[in-house]
Amino acid sequence: MLGIGVIGYGYWGPNIVRNFSALEGVRVVGISDKNTDIISRLAAANPSIRTCTNPMELIEAPDVDALAIVTPVSTHYELARKALENGKHVFVEKPLTASSAQAEDLIELAETKKLKIMVDHTFLFTGAVRKIKQLIDTKELGKIFYYDSVRVNLGLFQHDVNVVWDLAPHDFSIMSYLIDEPPVALSAWGKSHVNSLEDIAYVTAHFNTSIVAHFSVNWLSPVKVRTTLIGGEKKMLVWNDLKADEKLKIYDKGVEARSKQGIYDILVSYRAGDMWAPKVEGLEALKLECSHFVDCIENGSTPVSDGKSGLDVVRMLEACDRSLSQQGRPVEIDFPGRSLYKISSGKEKTDDLPADLL
Amino acid sequence: MLGIGVIGYGYWGPNIVRNFSALEGVRVVGISDKNTDIISRLAAANPSIRTCTNPMELIEAPDVDALAIVTPVSTHYELARKALENGKHVFVEKPLTASSAQAEDLIELAETKKLKIMVDHTFLFTGAVRKIKQLIDTKELGKIFYYDSVRVNLGLFQHDVNVVWDLAPHDFSIMSYLIDEPPVALSAWGKSHVNSLEDIAYVTAHFNTSIVAHFSVNWLSPVKVRTTLIGGEKKMLVWNDLKADEKLKIYDKGVEARSKQGIYDILVSYRAGDMWAPKVEGLEALKLECSHFVDCIENGSTPVSDGKSGLDVVRMLEACDRSLSQQGRPVEIDFPGRSLYKISSGKEKTDDLPADLL
Amino acid sequence: MLGIGVIGYGYWGPNIVRNFSALEGVRVVGISDKNTDIISRLAAANPSIRTCTNPMELIEAPDVDALAIVTPVSTHYELARKALENGKHVFVEKPLTASSAQAEDLIELAETKKLKIMVDHTFLFTGAVRKIKQLIDTKELGKIFYYDSVRVNLGLFQHDVNVVWDLAPHDFSIMSYLIDEPPVALSAWGKSHVNSLEDIAYVTAHFNTSIVAHFSVNWLSPVKVRTTLIGGEKKMLVWNDLKADEKLKIYDKGVEARSKQGIYDILVSYRAGDMWAPKVEGLEALKLECSHFVDCIENGSTPVSDGKSGLDVVRMLEACDRSLSQQGRPVEIDFPGRSLYKISSGKEKTDDLPADLL
Amino acid sequence: MLGIGVIGYGYWGPNIVRNFSALEGVRVVGISDKNTDIISRLAAANPSIRTCTNPMELIEAPDVDALAIVTPVSTHYELARKALENGKHVFVEKPLTASSAQAEDLIELAETKKLKIMVDHTFLFTGAVRKIKQLIDTKELGKIFYYDSVRVNLGLFQHDVNVVWDLAPHDFSIMSYLIDEPPVALSAWGKSHVNSLEDIAYVTAHFNTSIVAHFSVNWLSPVKVRTTLIGGEKKMLVWNDLKADEKLKIYDKGVEARSKQGIYDILVSYRAGDMWAPKVEGLEALKLECSHFVDCIENGSTPVSDGKSGLDVVRMLEACDRSLSQQGRPVEIDFPGRSLYKISSGKEKTDDLPADLL
Repeated sequence: MLGIGVIGYGYWGPNIVRNFSALEGVRVVGISDKNTDIISRLAAANPSIRTCTNPMELIEAPDVDALAIVTPVSTHYELARKALENGKHVFVEKPLTASSAQAEDLIELAETKKLKIMVDHTFLFTGAVRKIKQLIDTKELGKIFYYDSVRVNLGLFQHDVNVVWDLAPHDFSIMSYLIDEPPVALSAWGKSHVNSLEDIAYVTAHFNTSIVAHFSVNWLSPVKVRTTLIGGEKKMLVWNDLKADEKLKIYDKGVEARSKQGIYDILVSYRAGDMWAPKVEGLEALKLECSHFVDCIENGSTPVSDGKSGLDVVRMLEACDRSLSQQGRPVEIDFPGRSLYKISSGKEKTDDLPADLL
Repeated sequence: MLGIGVIGYGYWGPNIVRNFSALEGVRVVGISDKNTDIISRLAAANPSIRTCTNPMELIEAPDVDALAIVTPVSTHYELARKALENGKHVFVEKPLTASSAQAEDLIELAETKKLKIMVDHTFLFTGAVRKIKQLIDTKELGKIFYYDSVRVNLGLFQHDVNVVWDLAPHDFSIMSYLIDEPPVALSAWGKSHVNSLEDIAYVTAHFNTSIVAHFSVNWLSPVKVRTTLIGGEKKMLVWNDLKADEKLKIYDKGVEARSKQGIYDILVSYRAGDMWAPKVEGLEALKLECSHFVDCIENGSTPVSDGKSGLDVVRMLEACDRSLSQQGRPVEIDFPGRSLYKISSGKEKTDDLPADLL
Repeated sequence: MLGIGVIGYGYWGPNIVRNFSALEGVRVVGISDKNTDIISRLAAANPSIRTCTNPMELIEAPDVDALAIVTPVSTHYELARKALENGKHVFVEKPLTASSAQAEDLIELAETKKLKIMVDHTFLFTGAVRKIKQLIDTKELGKIFYYDSVRVNLGLFQHDVNVVWDLAPHDFSIMSYLIDEPPVALSAWGKSHVNSLEDIAYVTAHFNTSIVAHFSVNWLSPVKVRTTLIGGEKKMLVWNDLKADEKLKIYDKGVEARSKQGIYDILVSYRAGDMWAPKVEGLEALKLECSHFVDCIENGSTPVSDGKSGLDVVRMLEACDRSLSQQGRPVEIDFPGRSLYKISSGKEKTDDLPADLL
Repeated sequence: MLGIGVIGYGYWGPNIVRNFSALEGVRVVGISDKNTDIISRLAAANPSIRTCTNPMELIEAPDVDALAIVTPVSTHYELARKALENGKHVFVEKPLTASSAQAEDLIELAETKKLKIMVDHTFLFTGAVRKIKQLIDTKELGKIFYYDSVRVNLGLFQHDVNVVWDLAPHDFSIMSYLIDEPPVALSAWGKSHVNSLEDIAYVTAHFNTSIVAHFSVNWLSPVKVRTTLIGGEKKMLVWNDLKADEKLKIYDKGVEARSKQGIYDILVSYRAGDMWAPKVEGLEALKLECSHFVDCIENGSTPVSDGKSGLDVVRMLEACDRSLSQQGRPVEIDFPGRSLYKISSGKEKTDDLPADLL
C-alpha cells in the first residue's frame, strides 16, 4: 500500500485526492493546507483522514511514501526539497519551480536519493494529446511546419505570476512532448493593463529547422479559446479542447511543390481532401497521470513528465521573462548537457509509459 | 457622366466593373487586360464596351475621367503615375504601391494635379468595420487594450509577395482606421516552407500607449479563420467575418481594479454580463466604396482610404519586411510630418464620409 | 434540523445527496439502495451515514421528515404512498408516476395528510428556463406563436420506458411552466428499431389558440441536440442548452402585417434586428430546487413542480402512448376540474417561489 | 446548337440563363417576363438577346428547342402544356405543377410527343446529395432507420403557396432520390399565424418498413437551419447545408442488439467511433443540372428528375394539404401503376446519369 500525502487543498487539490484515492494499492494518508477553515471543513466531512495546517507533519510522516505538492509556484521548491530530503517521491503542480536553478537542484537531489519527481503536466495524459503524439510519431502529418496555439480567456487563474507563467506551461509541455526537437530561442512580447503583471503575451519559439511555434496567451479575452493548429507537410490538424466531441480534426490538406512551367507560373499548389475526427479516449487524464506516477515509483521507471521535462518548461518560462523585459528580443535557451528531450530519448520515454497509455 | 477605365480584369476586376457600372451618372468606358484570351471573351460577351490589351489606350482616352487599377502590386506605381500625369483620378488595388517612396511620389503628383487617389481597402466600407468604428468612437468599448487578428487559410492569393503583403494590408488598414493612434514600431517574424516567400508570419505593432496589436497571417492553415478580437476597458468584441449572421459580438465584460483588502487579496476582478450582436448593414462594401470614390471626385472631398492612408499601410509592410529579415527585431515606423491619421484628423475624415456611411 | 432520507443511489442519487447535504438546517439521515454493492461501498466511504437495502427502514424512521425517491418510474407510486402514509413529505424523480391514476391518488393522500409532493423537474430551476419565463411573463416576446424542441442523442437513459417517457418529461414540464395555457390534445408518432420500445418519436401539442408546440425525441441521433426555439410575435429565442456560454439568444425579429397595396402585393413583412444573449444565472439548478423543497416544507407553500404539475406531465405522457398506438391520431387531454396551471394560477405559483428564484 | 428560351426572369431566372449560356453547343435564344421594367433593363444590357413580355413569342419560335419555365407554380401547367404542344422540351421550376392531375396530363403529352420534361430539383445535383446517394447505395450506412430534416428560416420565399409547398419540395425530392422506397402515407400538421397560409408545419412520412421520415418547415424561425440527419443501422450522417466546409459528417455510430443476460439487463448497446467529413464536390449544382437536361435531350435518356419524379413530389404535397385540413390524419398516397421510383427503377435512373454525376 503506497501512502500519499497531499499538500494544498485549494482548487486543484480535491481532484488530486479523488484520483489517488481511487487507485488500487494507494491510500491518501493525509492532507495539509495552511488555511484553517479548509482544514476544519475537511476534517468534519472526512473524520478518517489525517489533516493538518503544517505540511511538515506529512513530509515527516513515516506512512507517507510520496507527496503531491499542490500549492502556489513560489512554495514548490522548499516543499519539494524537504520532501526529497525526507525520502519521499514528489508529484509537483506545474510549473515545477520558480527558477531553473531550483529545478536543477531538485533533480540532482532526487537522483542522489533515487526518488522520483513528476510534474503535473496533465494535458500529456489526455486522449487528444496522446492521439496527436501518435499521429506525429507515425509520420501521418509528415514533416512538421508549425505549431500554433491560442489559449485565452477572461480572468487570471494565478495571482502571483504573469499570464505566460499561468497559461503557457501547458503549451510548452505539450509542444515539447509532441515535437522531438528543442527550440533554440524564444521571443515573448506582452503588456500589462491592470496591474504590473503582463495580462496579454505573444510567444514565438525559434527552431533550427523549418518549424514555427507561436503561442497567444491572454487574460483579457471575452471568449475562451483553447485551440492548437499543427501543420504538417502531409496533413494538418486542429485541436479544439473546448469541444465535447470532435476535439481533434485531421485535414487531408497540404501544400505541394509543382513543376515550374514558366517564369510566372505558380510554383506551389494546395491540396484539400477529407477531414477526419478520430474518436478520442475520454478517460480522465488526471486518473491516468496519477496511475502513471504510482507505476513509476513501483517499477523504477521514469515519468513522462519527469523533473527534466519540468526543468525544460521552466527554462522556457525564464527565457520568456527575459525576452519580455527586452521588447521581444529572441533569448537563447541553453539546455546544458543535452538537447531538449534528446538525451532522455523519445524511445526511453516511450518505454516508460504503461502500454495502455500508447 | 463620369467615365471610368478599368485596368486588369482578373479575379477582382469584374467586381469593380459591376459596381461602378451600377452607379448613377457613372459609365465604365473601357477595360484593359494584357491577357488576350480574357479580352477576347470579354469583347464577345459585351460588344458595347471598349476593350484593349494596352492600358495606355484607356490612360490617354479623353472620355476616361478616372482609372481603376486592378493589377499586381508591382505594376501599380507606373500605371498610377501615367494616369495622374494624364489628369485621371486613380482608384488603386491594395496595397497602394510596392514601396513608400513610390507612394509618396504619387501623393505629391496627385496634390499638384488636384487629383484623387483612393486605395481599395474594401473592408473599411463593410457594415462590420463601420459598426466597430462607431463603437470605438462613441467610447462604448472604453480605452482600447488590444487588437488581435487572425487571418489564416490554405493557399496564397498572390504569387509575387509574401503572406504579410498578401493578407496584412487588410488588417493594417482596418486597425489604422479604427484606432486613432499610430504604432511606433512593428515586429514581424515568419518562415517560408515551400518556396522563398514567407508563408506564415506573426506581426506585433508597438504603441506608445497601453495598446497591444497582433496579427497572425498564414497560408498553410487547414481551416479558414477571419477573426478579430478588440478588448476595451469597458467592453470587448469579437468580429468573425466568416459568419453569415452575428458577425459582430459585443461582450459586456471587462476587468476592474478592486480595492485591496489585504496583502494576499486579489487586486483585480473580472466582470461578465450580457452579449449583444448588433444587426450589421449587409450592403455590398465595394458598392459603397465605389460610390464614395465618385462622391469624392464630384465634391472635391478626401477619400477615407486616400493616398496618405495607403502610404501608411505600405510603410507598415516595409517595416515588417525589415523586421522579418532581422529575426523579429522591432523596426520603428517614421510617419514624417504627421502622426498616423493625426494630422488628417479623425474629424476631417468623418466629414468626408457620406452621411449614410456613418 | 430537517431529516432527509434518500431512496435510490444510482446515477442521480449522489447529486441529490450532495445538494441536500449542503443546505443549512438539513441533514441527510440515511440512504437506501437495493443493490448491496452500492450500499457496501457507500457505508465504507461514509461511516457516519445510515445505509440500508430496505427502503422501509427510512420510510419508517422517526428522524426522517422527507424522502427523496430516486428510483425507476415503476416503483415511484408504491414508495411515495408508503412515505406519505408514514407522514413524510416526498421529493420524487420525474415523471411522478407510471399512470395518472397513481398520481391522483398520491395527490389526494398528500392533501389529506397535509404533506408536500415535489417532482424533480430540475430544468425549471435552471437560469435559462427562469430567464425565458421572465421574458414571456413580461411580454417581451409578445404573443407566443410556437414552441419547438429537439432533444436527441445516441443512446437511451432508461431501459423500462420508451423515448417519450425518457426524454419528453423535461419538455412537457418546461413548456407547461412557460406557457400559461394547457394543450387540448397531443399527437405522437414514433417507431422502434431495435427492441419493442419506440426509440424515435415526434410529438405535437394542440392548443385552442394559435400556439404550435412540437417535440422531437430520438435515441438514435449521432449528435446530441438540446435546442428549443420559441417564436413570439415581437421577438424570438433560441435556447441551446449544450452551450457553455450564450445558452440563450433572443432575436429582435418578427413578422408584421403590412397594409395591402394591391392584389399581388406581399401582405406580410419580416423584421430583423439585433440579437442579444443575456447572462444566464449559472447556479446549479438542483441546489436551488432542493432549497425550494425545504422552503415549501418549512413555510407551508406549494412547490413550483408540485404533485398537480407532475400529474399534468403524466397525463401528457399517457396521451402520447395512446396516440402512438393509433398512428398519431390526436388524443384529447382531460385536465379534470381545472385547466392546466389555470386553477393553481400563475400568480399562486409565483408567490410560492423564493424571491431569488424570480 | 440547342436553342433555349427562358420564361420568367425574377430571382432564379438569371441563374438559369447564366448556366445554360455557359454550356457548349447551347444558346439562350430569348427571355420573356411579363414585367416590362425587367425586360427593358435586360434588353438595354444585352442588346443581342431576344426579349419579350409574351411567352408565346418564345413558345412558338422555331429556333427554340427547349423552354425553361421559371415562373410561379400556378402558371407552370399552362405554359408547359403550350410548350409541349409546340414540340419543345421543358425544364420546369419546382414543384412541377399545382396538382397531380396537371402533372399527369403533361407527362402523357410529353410521352406522346417524345419530348423531355425535367423538373428543377437542383439539390439532386449538389455534391452533398450525390455523396449521400453513394453512401446509401453502397450500403455504407446500412439499413436506413430514419430521415429527419429541418428547413426553417425567417420569411417566405413564395407568396402564393403555404410553407409546405414552398420548402418541402426540396426535401421530398431529395428523400425520394435517396431512399429507394416510397412512403405509403403522409401526415402534416401546421398553423398559420399571419395570414391564411400555414407558416409552420411538421410532416411525417409513413413507410411500410422501419423507416421514419420527418420534415420540419417554418417561415417564422429566427435562425436559418438546413440540417438533415439520416440514421442507418451501421452509420449515421448529418448534412448541414449551411456550412461552407464539412457540409457532410458521417459518424461511425450505431446501435447493436446485445445478447440478453438477465431479465433486467440492457438489451441494446450503442457504439461510437470516428467521424469523417468527406470532401464534397463544389461544382455549381445548377450547372450540372442544366448540362444533364441538354444531355437527355441529345441522347434520348430520361432525366433524374423527370416528369414522373416531379409528379411524385406533387402527390406528396397534395397529401400534405389534405392532412393539414384534417388535423394531421395520415393520408395515403397512391402511386398508380408503380411504386415511387420502383418501376422507373434505380438502375434505369443510374444509367441515365452522366458518368461524372456519379
